[in-house]
Amino acid sequence: MLKDLPLGRVYQHIEPGPVTLLTTQATGKKPNVMTMSWHMMLDFEPPYIGCVVGAANHSFATLRRTGECVIAIPPADLAEVVTKIGNCSGRDTDKFAVFPLTPLPARHVAPPLVGECIVNLECKVRDTYMVNRYNMFVLECVKAWQNPNLAAAKTLHHQGYGRFTLDGEEIRIKSKMR
Amino acid sequence: MLKDLPLGRVYQHIEPGPVTLLTTQATGKKPNVMTMSWHMMLDFEPPYIGCVVGAANHSFATLRRTGECVIAIPPADLAEVVTKIGNCSGRDTDKFAVFPLTPLPARHVAPPLVGECIVNLECKVRDTYMVNRYNMFVLECVKAWQNPNLAAAKTLHHQGYGRFTLDGEEIRIKSKMR
Repeated sequence: MLKDLPLGRVYQHIEPGPVTLLTTQATGKKPNVMTMSWHMMLDFEPPYIGCVVGAANHSFATLRRTGECVIAIPPADLAEVVTKIGNCSGRDTDKFAVFPLTPLPARHVAPPLVGECIVNLECKVRDTYMVNRYNMFVLECVKAWQNPNLAAAKTLHHQGYGRFTLDGEEIRIKSKMR
Repeated sequence: MLKDLPLGRVYQHIEPGPVTLLTTQATGKKPNVMTMSWHMMLDFEPPYIGCVVGAANHSFATLRRTGECVIAIPPADLAEVVTKIGNCSGRDTDKFAVFPLTPLPARHVAPPLVGECIVNLECKVRDTYMVNRYNMFVLECVKAWQNPNLAAAKTLHHQGYGRFTLDGEEIRIKSKMR
């Protein structure tokens, strides 16, 4: 179902700033998923991504300990689910059981891909220097997937307090910028 | 013309991932401006922002040396200008002379605000540890401005090679998430 996404094209999905889901999995435990909007590209290829996972989040300790996660980009029609995921904790909720998300096995990391998402990025933590100061992880995307059924899906952009903007009109302007 | 934007609301403009302009100003020189899409929030308040400025950019050395910049969020109708700014260098182009942008004095930093932008963030560099590794600067926004005439303006999101998505439909979903 999911198809390969060339690593050199990962930035084209992160740079626009979509709301993402982050999956993690503690050894011997069920996978967890959180909503994440604080992320940016650090390098094109191999794709390096910086992201902030609040220390209060259940995912924080797991990400730090296992050094693995999946960043998944949900389509806009999952806005309700994405919001609910952000409003509960993996401490007391088995989110993959409660919410209509399909965990699929990843190739290089333990946490699952999310079948309903447009893009899935298997990531390994490469640098934790900024974790103590800013809860910021430096990730390398080691494998990327796209869902061909969702190639035209819109993404969500969070403006705070459950207010989202959806992707609108697309324009192309001649540019040498990658 | 520009009005105060409370610092606690800065994240609402950066988190959605808009294309931004970054102004810098070397001591005794004219200001410069570049296009920047790799940025993210690091903390709500005071607002901390991480951003990547490629070492090949003329702005890189100035930002590193002066420790000051302004992040400005342009409205979508400036897409052509924003793209052209990204396709030339301050090394050989006086961009504020060539492009229809109005530099306005900032309150706490030397680089100018951009009068035509929706939001302007006066920033100081607070951490350069990640500059050598990832060209990443940690900024604190010390003062923020909004343009009341552009409160409803759409922003740009870059998907690579001059392909931009504009803000589309807005939705609100009940949420406790800030």
